[in-house]
This record gives sequence, structure tokens and C-alpha cells, in this order.
Amino acid sequence: MTTHFQWMRRALHLASKGRGFTSPNPMVGAVLVKNHHIIGEGYHEKFGGPHAEVMALRQAGVKAKDATMYVTLEPCSHQGKTPPCAPQVIKAGVSRVYISMTDPNPLVNQNGIRMLENAGVKVYTGLLEKEARDLNRGFISLMEKKRPWLTLKMAQTADGYIADLSGKSQWITSPPAREFVMSQRALHDGIMVGLGTVLKDNPGLLPAKRDAYIPWRIILAGTLMMPDSLKILTDDYTQRTMILTCENPEPERLKFLTDRGLKILTIPADSTGKVSIPKVLEVLGEQGITSVYCEGGGQIAGTLIREGLCDEIQLFVAPKVLGQGLPVFGGFAKNLDQAVRLKWEDIQRIGPDLLVRGRLDSCLQD
Amino acid sequence: MTTHFQWMRRALHLASKGRGFTSPNPMVGAVLVKNHHIIGEGYHEKFGGPHAEVMALRQAGVKAKDATMYVTLEPCSHQGKTPPCAPQVIKAGVSRVYISMTDPNPLVNQNGIRMLENAGVKVYTGLLEKEARDLNRGFISLMEKKRPWLTLKMAQTADGYIADLSGKSQWITSPPAREFVMSQRALHDGIMVGLGTVLKDNPGLLPAKRDAYIPWRIILAGTLMMPDSLKILTDDYTQRTMILTCENPEPERLKFLTDRGLKILTIPADSTGKVSIPKVLEVLGEQGITSVYCEGGGQIAGTLIREGLCDEIQLFVAPKVLGQGLPVFGGFAKNLDQAVRLKWEDIQRIGPDLLVRGRLDSCLQD
Repeated sequence: MTTHFQWMRRALHLASKGRGFTSPNPMVGAVLVKNHHIIGEGYHEKFGGPHAEVMALRQAGVKAKDATMYVTLEPCSHQGKTPPCAPQVIKAGVSRVYISMTDPNPLVNQNGIRMLENAGVKVYTGLLEKEARDLNRGFISLMEKKRPWLTLKMAQTADGYIADLSGKSQWITSPPAREFVMSQRALHDGIMVGLGTVLKDNPGLLPAKRDAYIPWRIILAGTLMMPDSLKILTDDYTQRTMILTCENPEPERLKFLTDRGLKILTIPADSTGKVSIPKVLEVLGEQGITSVYCEGGGQIAGTLIREGLCDEIQLFVAPKVLGQGLPVFGGFAKNLDQAVRLKWEDIQRIGPDLLVRGRLDSCLQD
Repeated sequence: MTTHFQWMRRALHLASKGRGFTSPNPMVGAVLVKNHHIIGEGYHEKFGGPHAEVMALRQAGVKAKDATMYVTLEPCSHQGKTPPCAPQVIKAGVSRVYISMTDPNPLVNQNGIRMLENAGVKVYTGLLEKEARDLNRGFISLMEKKRPWLTLKMAQTADGYIADLSGKSQWITSPPAREFVMSQRALHDGIMVGLGTVLKDNPGLLPAKRDAYIPWRIILAGTLMMPDSLKILTDDYTQRTMILTCENPEPERLKFLTDRGLKILTIPADSTGKVSIPKVLEVLGEQGITSVYCEGGGQIAGTLIREGLCDEIQLFVAPKVLGQGLPVFGGFAKNLDQAVRLKWEDIQRIGPDLLVRGRLDSCLQD
């Protein structure tokens, strides 16, 4: 017999199909079950489109009466781009609803559940909640912290250098590790790097598969003056390049870049005259970007860590010892007591390299 | 039915009981089996004492005739502190001998096997050879490289610092990691640190269990002038403290230290006026020390890596980010191509920290 867990897992799987297209909305999946059979299912396919519950109800039609719904997020109670879902679930006669996680959106926040319960629908929450929260960590971050979820990727030697003394960093890690990074890109709404990294490596910043969703390529740049031949300015995905600059753009340059399809946003500078990182994340959130994969450089990484703006760190450690080179982060802690604390979550081998994942938990800090 | 592997595993287990007491001899274990029963077994208990084969033969007595011997190292063919073993195995009438590894000692080097075979004993080699070589990696290193096996332990933050800018390093890693280090000490003949580390941390450099073997505490010191109150000069194990200095010892100071039980050796200085590390390892080998656990500091670690004198690296990585601090190693590689290459062997979690083990394989280098 199929268990509640298995039906919800199916709903989570459906939800994940919307990745990249629903932001800033969450990914949601729903499965309608009656007599141990799926009578309808669906997921939120893209921002502005119908919600998962409605997709499933449409498919089930009149069979939805007395059915059980498995939905990864609390059905909404408010009018958004589409009518609220909870009344439609009630109207269809669904008798039981299993929900993974409540909606952190202050407009919903258990109102959907109350609405269902008041109509006599039995509601059970928390089924595979961890998985659901992990899937929508970007959406949750945006709701709770008003900024995207931030994953920081660093590739370093065993002794903590990201480049040799000449600044050369291609390649510290192995081809399998670099392929893994490309697959990680597809799990985020945007890939962020500093202009220095772009000028040094001329990266494409693209995911491995390019047949569907292409994440935003977000460049933090003190200036818009950069070689016109850069990949991010010339390839097929220029309309997915966003430059955040603190320079007042020179109109002709601005026109040149926007004509190429780029989005240019002006951000205030911080006290050192560089693009203000907290402001960047705020603006990215306003742009509907729920998750960012930051690939450096060191100064941006250091700021993210120091300012507590980083949620997960992915540390690729190559089996190499340099003895000297460019350090991973720009300096911040004066002593050990000021060190930023992580929690190692996962370790795996990728080719000859190691990938260590850590979470930065604000409750770990002093 | 007990398999050949299981009998050899028993022999390896017996061999390991001699750890710390046999150096510079290898650890060896032997099991004599007849009709699926052990009729004799033994191990090399201490340097100068009887060999494992002889122990097993003595226990078996006349029953040894037509028995099978499992022995972790090729029986010796030469007169050492004790008479050669191979003739005694033959004389006892043992019909088959399983051997894990051949003896790298040039005085033996398959002569023992030839002696057995010429007498009509059936000889099988290579059973659990990897395990046997690992057990006696110190002995093998001394035979093949004329220096002890060197394990380098480093404790660092996620971004590769061994101390904060003030030099404070207590404690980067957690109590479980530090306990693990103490257990590792017991697996080596000696624990090596620089005087700087001793002056900074005043460590005891002792293993967790002190009821049996206490490894040598080896201090590399430019000078013998150090506080008389240091643990290594005052605790119950001063006769297990060895100071290697490049200073011509002042006679009164020398007498003071040797009166306390310490061993003082004078080593040539290198071009920078410090104790020459290659010479140190040569001298330690002459002292019968087959394996060394080096716990820093950074300059010694850097020299060991740069000079290819390190066999295994144990990298403890704490879930902390400092952003700045003292780097792990003294600098050496000018660029990425000159990086020293490792091979990650093993990863494990120890408390909140990670332990990453890497091997430095000379064949990995350019």
C-alpha cells in the first residue's frame, strides 16, 4: 500500500519541476488520491500560472469529492495573480488535506489551514516538512529575511588558497568538481560573481543543461567599463545577464549594454566605494530572485560571511598544497573568538576533490 | 570454516600488540594451524626478544610438524639479535607458510622464502599484504627511505588558518578532535614539535593511555634555553623527551637537562640557521624511531611538505571561518603548477570537526 509519505514525495517531486520558473513564488506540487489511486495531480508551473491545487482539482473533476489531497505548501487564502486555493479545495469536496509546510507568507500564515478546518476538512501538517522547506528555502528566505537564500561556493587548496600568488586559479579543482558546480547553478535563481572574477576568467556562468531554465548571471561591478567581447555580453543568454553597479551609468554605455539585452541596476556604494552587498541582496529579492549561488571572488565572499548574509557554504578542497597564495576570504576576525561558526552538514568526494558543505546558522554566533 | 584471511588477521592482530616496543624492528605476528585449530601463536614482543615464529613454534612443540604457519612478515634468514627463523620453521617440519609481505631488509629480501622453498616448504605470499605493509609502514620507510614514516597533523579553520593573528591557536578544534590526536600519538614511535609550539602551548605531548608505551617527545629547538617549568621537562616522562638542537650545548645546561632524564642531540643547522629537517629525520632513524607524528608548527610543516619528507597528512578542519590569521604552512609554491599534490584517502567527522587524511605520493609529483 502506498503510504502518506510516498504520496507526499510524489507531490514534492512534481513541485520541483517548477524550479526556476515560479520565483518569487514557491514551488508547489499537489496530488489528489482516492481509493489508493491518483485521480489528479499538478504543480505550479510558472509565476502567474495556476496553483498546484487547482491543477490537481481540474484533473480530478467531480471525482475530487471525498478525496485526500497531498500538497507541499499550505493552500493560499488570499487573492493573488490567481483566486485563492483553499475555497476551491473546499468547494470540490476534498475531505482530507496533508500539508508539508505552512506558508510563511504573512498574507497566508495559517489562514489557509483555518479556512479548510472551519469548512470541516481534516488537515494534517508537517508531513516531509524538512524536505519541503529545503525545496523552497529561497522562497522562505525571501519571506523571512527579505533577501535570497545565499549559497557560497569556494574552491581552495588544502591549505586554504583560492589562487596562487600571481592570481591564477584555473584550475584548482578537477573537471568533475567543475561539472558539479554547473549542476548546482541550475538549482538557483541566480549566479553571482564580482567583476574581477569575470575579467580574470571570462566565465560563461551557465548551468550544465541549457534546454530549459537559465539562471540570472549577476555581476557586481564598480564600473560598466569592461571588454565587449566577454562571454556574458556576447553569448546567447545576454538577456539573462544582470549587472549591478554603483557607478552612475554613462548613457551611451548603458544603451549599448541594454541593447545587447542586459539588465543594468544601480546600487548604492558602501563606505569603501564598492557595491553594497546587503543592498545587492535586497535588490535581488525585489527582482524576484529567491536563491543565489555566489562563486566569488574572495572579497565578496568575505563580506557575505562577515555580514551573516550567507546561508550555505560549499567548499571544494583540492588535494594540493600551495604554501602561499591568495586567501579564500578577505580578512575580518581579529581573534579566534570572533570566528564565524559553521556546522558541517555533508562531506562527499567529487573526483579527486572533496566537497564540504556547511551551514551558517545565526544562532551559532555569539 | 576459518579461512586463510581469518588466520592471517589473527596474526596481524597479534603483531600489533608489539607496537612501540619492537622498533626499529618490525611488528610481526605468527599463527600455527593444524586440523583447523591454532596449535601455537606469538608475536615479536620487544626489540631484542624472540621473533613471532619462534614464539609460535615453542608453543606448538612437536605438533608443529605438518602444520601451516601464518606469519605477517617473511621469516628472517640472517643472524641478528636472535638466530634466524627460517631454519627453525624448516626444522620443526612446518609444511606450508603463508606470508603477508616480504622483508624489505636487504639482509633478508626473499632469502627467507628461498630457504623455505629449497627445503620443500610450500610458501604463499601476499595474503593481506596491504594491511601488513600499513602496520609496518614505519619499518618499511626506515628500510627504503632511511627515515621514519612521517604523519603531519594540522588543525585549521575552514579557510586554512592554524591560529588567529595574535598567534592564538587554543582551541581551533573540538575536544573530540583533540582526544583523537592523543590516540594517534600512541600509533607512532615519536611525537615531533618545534620549540615555538612548546613555548606557546606548553603541551604534554602524551598519548591518551599511559599504562604502556610512551612515544618519544621530540623537540626541535634552536636553543636549549627554555623555561625549566615546561611540562616536557618536569613531568613523569622526561626520559621520553628528546631535544634536537643545532646549538652547541652549553655544558652546564646540557648537564641540567640530561640530569632530568632528557636526551639531547646536536644536529647541523640548515642554511637559515635552523635545525636541518632532513638531518633530523636521518638522526631519528638512527635512533630506531620508525614513525613520527608531527604536530607543527607551520614552518616545520612547510619544510616537510616542500622537501617531500611527509607521507601522510591529517588535516583537522574546524567549522570556523577566521578571514585572516596564520597560514598553515610556510610558503613555497610560486604557482599552481608547483603545488604539492596529495591524494585524499579518507574523510571522517570527529565531533563538530572534519578529519581529512591525504597521502603524499612522490609519484604524484611532477
